[in-house]
Amino acid sequence: MPKDTILLAHGSGGRMTHELVRDIFLQHLGNPLLDTQDDAAVWTLPRACPERIALTTDSYVVSPIFFPGGDIGKLAVCGTVNDLAMVGATPLYLTAGFILEEGLPLEVLYRVVASMAEAGREAEVEIAAGDTKVVERGGVDRMFITTAGVGEVPEGVCISGANVKPGDVAILSGPVGQHGIAVMSQRDGLQFSFPLQSDCAPLQGLVAEMLKTGRPIHGLRDPTRGGLATTLNEIAGQSRVGIEIEEERVPVSEEVRAACELLGLDPLYVANEGKLVAFVPPEVEVAVLEAMRRHRYGKEATVIGRATSAHPGRVVIKTTFGAHRVLDMLSGAQLPRIC
Amino acid sequence: MPKDTILLAHGSGGRMTHELVRDIFLQHLGNPLLDTQDDAAVWTLPRACPERIALTTDSYVVSPIFFPGGDIGKLAVCGTVNDLAMVGATPLYLTAGFILEEGLPLEVLYRVVASMAEAGREAEVEIAAGDTKVVERGGVDRMFITTAGVGEVPEGVCISGANVKPGDVAILSGPVGQHGIAVMSQRDGLQFSFPLQSDCAPLQGLVAEMLKTGRPIHGLRDPTRGGLATTLNEIAGQSRVGIEIEEERVPVSEEVRAACELLGLDPLYVANEGKLVAFVPPEVEVAVLEAMRRHRYGKEATVIGRATSAHPGRVVIKTTFGAHRVLDMLSGAQLPRIC
Repeated sequence: MPKDTILLAHGSGGRMTHELVRDIFLQHLGNPLLDTQDDAAVWTLPRACPERIALTTDSYVVSPIFFPGGDIGKLAVCGTVNDLAMVGATPLYLTAGFILEEGLPLEVLYRVVASMAEAGREAEVEIAAGDTKVVERGGVDRMFITTAGVGEVPEGVCISGANVKPGDVAILSGPVGQHGIAVMSQRDGLQFSFPLQSDCAPLQGLVAEMLKTGRPIHGLRDPTRGGLATTLNEIAGQSRVGIEIEEERVPVSEEVRAACELLGLDPLYVANEGKLVAFVPPEVEVAVLEAMRRHRYGKEATVIGRATSAHPGRVVIKTTFGAHRVLDMLSGAQLPRIC
Repeated sequence: MPKDTILLAHGSGGRMTHELVRDIFLQHLGNPLLDTQDDAAVWTLPRACPERIALTTDSYVVSPIFFPGGDIGKLAVCGTVNDLAMVGATPLYLTAGFILEEGLPLEVLYRVVASMAEAGREAEVEIAAGDTKVVERGGVDRMFITTAGVGEVPEGVCISGANVKPGDVAILSGPVGQHGIAVMSQRDGLQFSFPLQSDCAPLQGLVAEMLKTGRPIHGLRDPTRGGLATTLNEIAGQSRVGIEIEEERVPVSEEVRAACELLGLDPLYVANEGKLVAFVPPEVEVAVLEAMRRHRYGKEATVIGRATSAHPGRVVIKTTFGAHRVLDMLSGAQLPRIC
């Protein structure tokens, strides 16, 4: 384990950059593509003639870097893998850009990169290209990571937030709010008496199981920043459908519910990093639900509502008390730097 | 032109994030792929069966954001386009991850994004996917951008820093040191009496002209951070060849030379953002040079030295006074946050 700290010279592009790449990045993430150290990685497409390629990116600025159930490295792999999975793509390669603060202990970088490597193994992706910049003390808060991802979209798969049809059933893969609350629990010494873990996980395997049913999946999205409520609003807007959700059907753990009450938060607006919501035609609901429940990240999958032709663009929630209210997109900044 | 500033809520993923995306990002960078606003962009490969795909990423933390001849947005497009071009790839799509400081004037973001759009048009690439995070005041210095790029490698093209052969001629596309000195000139009120412009430019067109000759190109690299000296050392190391350079053949403008003398810098270690060095077999030197000189970014292309079987892994420079000395990789941090 390296004992020194990041210096500005680690970002100079010169000898110390090369040593950092060799000693930390290649040690954990090394693979034939990354090892070439050319300006770009060049790879042959896995199939002779793949139809379509998916491309995505996310920057990660989560604070603190380490939280129960994950860290910024695991998040940077899972988040980008999940964005590929949400269009039905099989993730192939990621890139990673690191922005480091001068003075960051090398040991911290080492742990984060090791965690990325582990998450990459579970997500079945390799880091094909990377970059490291160093900013003077105070110019960046410890470290930020930006990952981009490339995936292959299987033939016949056409999943989009704009493809949801009235009548489609909304399936949620599990309880909401865990990631946001787990990160919050590390801030300002906020301590809960119960264990809270982020749900941070790569979902490409769960989506693969869903696609294997051969049944049509119209829309998929992972409710990250802004939570489930915001995600549903995005889909309602893109597909020009209404969405009706039953509050009592949305699973929320006892711990998350208690923490949300304490903090004055609505779990429907709290970020998740290992959940998805799927919209499927009603006739395939059972087959898709069964496939999801067979996977470790879909065990608690459940129907939470449906798309309607009424009130297009709007999400309505039937509360536990039987009342209906409009569930709007997140407004304001509920939980900054949650991912 | 928007008059407000970036708020934490712009990074919440909720309503204000969507408004920012609509009003600034889609306005300038909008295209059918970005407009879908799904978690990942899905595109069909341009040819039925392309052989190989190139993938790269770079983070940009340049300070100040605006400098003579460019800004962080133009840099983020050109830098990543150039990394694709350096393996002979035709750039197809970029992704862009923005990390913004709370309080950043929207007008600054607006200008940077407009500049990215303009650079994208010249580089013939579109931004297919993006992400925006906001960090509290003091958590990031104004704004950072991380771009990733995907390109298609034409059949038969095999360019790598590891493919250079003894006897290959080293061609430099133009004078060195302009970018680094232009950025430095904006720091700490350092003012020169002469105009200094960054050479920041997309090089995919120049490389396309070189490839059109049909002549073999063994190695290509753009001497960015660490300058020409570091780049030559990388190639010498990757290809296990020696490299011999003649100092008086390396073009340096009067202005850059004067600024370097004032600042105690060696122009061979100063960053460029619109130059490349090519290694080609001696028998194709004339054809490649002619092709380069026909292009606006290669007008001053010139041979600066060659690869040798002597002293593999080492770069030797013959100084103006006829002496030979080892030209090492940059050590230490000459110019932090230059890109």
